[in-house]
Amino acid sequence: MQTRRMLLPTMLVVCLGLAWLQVASAADEPLPSWQDGPARRAIIDFVARITREGGPDFVPAAERIATFDNDGTLWTEQPMYIQMAFALDRVKALAPQHPEWRDQQPFKAVLEGDLKALAASDEKGLVELLVATHAGMTTEEFGQIVKDWLATAKHPRFNRPYTACIYQPMVELLAYLRANGFKTYIVSGGGIEFMRPWTEQAYGIPPEQVIGSSIKTKFEMRDGKPVLMRLPEIDFIDDKDGKPVGIGKFIGRRPILAFGNSDGDQQMLQWTAAGSGARFMGLVHHTDAEREYAYDRTSEFGRLDKALDEAKARGWTVVSMKDEWKTIFPVAAGQ
Amino acid sequence: MQTRRMLLPTMLVVCLGLAWLQVASAADEPLPSWQDGPARRAIIDFVARITREGGPDFVPAAERIATFDNDGTLWTEQPMYIQMAFALDRVKALAPQHPEWRDQQPFKAVLEGDLKALAASDEKGLVELLVATHAGMTTEEFGQIVKDWLATAKHPRFNRPYTACIYQPMVELLAYLRANGFKTYIVSGGGIEFMRPWTEQAYGIPPEQVIGSSIKTKFEMRDGKPVLMRLPEIDFIDDKDGKPVGIGKFIGRRPILAFGNSDGDQQMLQWTAAGSGARFMGLVHHTDAEREYAYDRTSEFGRLDKALDEAKARGWTVVSMKDEWKTIFPVAAGQ
Repeated sequence: MQTRRMLLPTMLVVCLGLAWLQVASAADEPLPSWQDGPARRAIIDFVARITREGGPDFVPAAERIATFDNDGTLWTEQPMYIQMAFALDRVKALAPQHPEWRDQQPFKAVLEGDLKALAASDEKGLVELLVATHAGMTTEEFGQIVKDWLATAKHPRFNRPYTACIYQPMVELLAYLRANGFKTYIVSGGGIEFMRPWTEQAYGIPPEQVIGSSIKTKFEMRDGKPVLMRLPEIDFIDDKDGKPVGIGKFIGRRPILAFGNSDGDQQMLQWTAAGSGARFMGLVHHTDAEREYAYDRTSEFGRLDKALDEAKARGWTVVSMKDEWKTIFPVAAGQ
Repeated sequence: MQTRRMLLPTMLVVCLGLAWLQVASAADEPLPSWQDGPARRAIIDFVARITREGGPDFVPAAERIATFDNDGTLWTEQPMYIQMAFALDRVKALAPQHPEWRDQQPFKAVLEGDLKALAASDEKGLVELLVATHAGMTTEEFGQIVKDWLATAKHPRFNRPYTACIYQPMVELLAYLRANGFKTYIVSGGGIEFMRPWTEQAYGIPPEQVIGSSIKTKFEMRDGKPVLMRLPEIDFIDDKDGKPVGIGKFIGRRPILAFGNSDGDQQMLQWTAAGSGARFMGLVHHTDAEREYAYDRTSEFGRLDKALDEAKARGWTVVSMKDEWKTIFPVAAGQ
């Protein structure tokens, strides 16, 4: 009888003990794919300071907003932005319905694989490319097109799905921040509707925490059913000056931590730095030609020049991929 | 010894037991300011169905999105929208710096209290009023102006702060939904930056879950410090067709529950209704001239006409304020 009466409390104690051990063990080893270098230590120190109740840098959980650029910060952006690879593949997929594209730039360049001619396109040509591949369908149809493409397309060098070209150390950082009460956001120059279909699975970031560039949509009835049609008209460019604007519009609170990798993120980092209290500004520096890519001041995609100077001058954390990351991509996902 | 060894487990069991009792007791009596009528029962039944794991209507927590109109749904909108009362008070406060307003409509009408002349203003006049009172300052300055105004302004009939003119039954509904895993959003035709400074305290809805109409902002450096300046240019009108568009843009997921009170909410309810699985569409019907106001098909503010017809035809829940709500406003807040 005594034994049975003890059973429930004992089980509870054991369960609670195990749960505690598990938490404690995870807390002992955060960010396992990061080298024990200055970047990892700066992150852990910052999180410890802003979560210490009663401490001078304590930030209430509701105000723990963290914003991350996507291309080049959370996943690879070389040899071209992944959304651009998507647009080029879409042109090829849609070409049979558009025989006129065979003689019309920039579609001709895409179909002939003439990247030089494509790079010479003016803005009008690029907008035509965007419209042809991103507008004219409902938001739900577009989300499905993105998912279908990601299910089969592969990165030309790493030969793995693009969603397996995400950075394992950054995935761990996102999870670590959320475990410490942060709300994690993407603030990307990329298309908001191009990201939302897959960010929850890849990064644990739900659609409502994805901010990006957008085209306009229109509510209308189609066969008696309401749909949101994607229109051939730019709504918002979430890059450079647009990033703080997007943060103001979508979140309405200033981040206390922001991470980017290019000059397109400089204003987001300035905006984050200008708040009161403890702040963390980080830049991923692509220094690893062997495992990923090495580029900064002269790169076509993800140029990091002015923001690198400002980071050095102001003591922001610059993460050298080669030196600070033990692994680049998730192991399981790509195998 | 035996006693002491038993102490911790016993305390744990007692604590867990108490916690369970508290939860169970709260669960026994949700929505205490609602009469035990058809609306309350429909809400509780819906929440029970979509939270029952393994049940046919189960919805994962991440997809439990609920959207609420604000004016007339969460707080009073008579005798005029509260944001309009704010704009009129701002004109009076700024008048000493604008002697020209004494002879210039619609400012003259505001300063002379000539509501008839004000009502006769054309759209250009109203935009001028909006620009003069809502643009030309930073987002942070505007938030402070709103807070300062709310701290002293009072509703002309109820003689209490406007933030005490929120509907107690709806505050309970928001909390009840959140306790059941919902993310609660405001989707209002009102200004997004007019709402964000106070919605967290009033409704438990943080700034990032407030969607509304907006003017454009611009990132710029002022005395070496980055600011977001509010520009005299409309960015987005979050009303009627704009509500599903705003939901698509900000949330990127379709709500499973939506509540409004006017024809401006009809498209949001249609959009919510058109998803698959269990859905809840609700309308607050202002039927209580004694405790609040009675209005619908012919009202200047918050007209409810076409949406009421559609609600009746499609079996959406129409909440008669007079019959279904025990109390209207929070008791403590207004005393």
